[in-house]
Amino acid sequence: VNLILLEPAEVSERAAESPGSRVSLSGPRANHLLKVLKVAPGSEVRVGILDGPCGIGTVQSIVDGTVALHCAFEATVPSPPRVDLLLALPRPKVMRRLWAQIAALGVGQIILTNAERVERNYFDTHVLTPECYGPLLIDGLQQARDTRRPQVSIHKQFKVLIEDHLDTLFPSGLRLLAEPAATKPVAAIVRESGDDRILLAIGPEGGWNRFETALLRAHGFQSGGMGPRTLRTDTACVALLAIVHDARINVR
Amino acid sequence: VNLILLEPAEVSERAAESPGSRVSLSGPRANHLLKVLKVAPGSEVRVGILDGPCGIGTVQSIVDGTVALHCAFEATVPSPPRVDLLLALPRPKVMRRLWAQIAALGVGQIILTNAERVERNYFDTHVLTPECYGPLLIDGLQQARDTRRPQVSIHKQFKVLIEDHLDTLFPSGLRLLAEPAATKPVAAIVRESGDDRILLAIGPEGGWNRFETALLRAHGFQSGGMGPRTLRTDTACVALLAIVHDARINVR
Repeated sequence: VNLILLEPAEVSERAAESPGSRVSLSGPRANHLLKVLKVAPGSEVRVGILDGPCGIGTVQSIVDGTVALHCAFEATVPSPPRVDLLLALPRPKVMRRLWAQIAALGVGQIILTNAERVERNYFDTHVLTPECYGPLLIDGLQQARDTRRPQVSIHKQFKVLIEDHLDTLFPSGLRLLAEPAATKPVAAIVRESGDDRILLAIGPEGGWNRFETALLRAHGFQSGGMGPRTLRTDTACVALLAIVHDARINVR
Repeated sequence: VNLILLEPAEVSERAAESPGSRVSLSGPRANHLLKVLKVAPGSEVRVGILDGPCGIGTVQSIVDGTVALHCAFEATVPSPPRVDLLLALPRPKVMRRLWAQIAALGVGQIILTNAERVERNYFDTHVLTPECYGPLLIDGLQQARDTRRPQVSIHKQFKVLIEDHLDTLFPSGLRLLAEPAATKPVAAIVRESGDDRILLAIGPEGGWNRFETALLRAHGFQSGGMGPRTLRTDTACVALLAIVHDARINVR
């Protein structure tokens, strides 16, 4: 954990706007401060308000495992990452591991979808409940020192998603379809694009079927290659998000 | 599995050199052929000889779960990936997941090392035995359609490794140290480098200590930045290997 994330409700409204505010932590975050970071009164730690600004917390007191912090927050809120992810739902064990990794790498929204090669029962898992993925996303944000929680939407009907909802979810920007066989690499397309936002589509193990690929292309997706090696969904997801972010950073 | 890997001993020597050779498979690979790929006599599947050529296997017969293939191998053997990895040993659970991912992404050798922030007991795990990691590496190769198994070496003494063994393990090429704080991105250094091989060093959670960083620099490592987000070792490993491979592909 490289940043302690606070819920807005933990920071009083008046205080969040003023230069300093008091926050009391107990539970896992207090344990982390005490056992891992080994804080003492006077220690400074990085803090952030969920979907709000980052700041610095100074330890005021430690009483019975409760850590009192005096926090000073920055005036500006970090922008959400400009990369979004359209992902054919992987099996629950893989999805469970991906939540924190995706949040750490940085995405504005995670759009999970069905596809022919996604098993229907994948949608019944608790891994898709906010109770499960919320804390995992926060783990990833705390690792990466970000406060902006990815928006999550889950779609059981691929065609309805692409035809009826995609333009609302992702109104403008580069739509990029990662395909093992495409000749032009993903990074080259990103570098040449002037779009402010990117939506990266990653298919199921075994790939999108022909209908799905055609529908994505008909809705503006360009195909980008992933190199000669075929990767599993989880590896591909991390690899492609890293490449897309890297290609953007090197442009600007 | 996108390629069925065969041990050289499973293919008779004479046969491997001739245009066709017979191979009999039972066990997990036969199960995969029958249950997942649903082969029948006449089906063609991608095959490869470990550290040897790729080829095409044609199913001749299926008897009692044993699949007989007639294999035709290519004349040339794929080159080993030109990226090597120097990795501070992560905790066993993470290392266990990384083996296949590293092999799938493609590395010539995996050099695992101790560091101050690596716990000593990580070295006692069965995850570091060839019996454990061998099959995981093969899983990754079969996923990525590669036959070249990464060389693995394990070093409990960081200083001895860097001072006494590194020049033998990695005699020439770009030595690259991934550091969150470095200003020049890893990809930019790779693109500007004319070196044929790259050794990518990734530290433990919490980073290399000052002595370790200084020793790596004294032995020719250049620092490359990883962007503003701090990643966990496993995510960083996949992300950086993807970025380095991508930067190389886009140069050539």
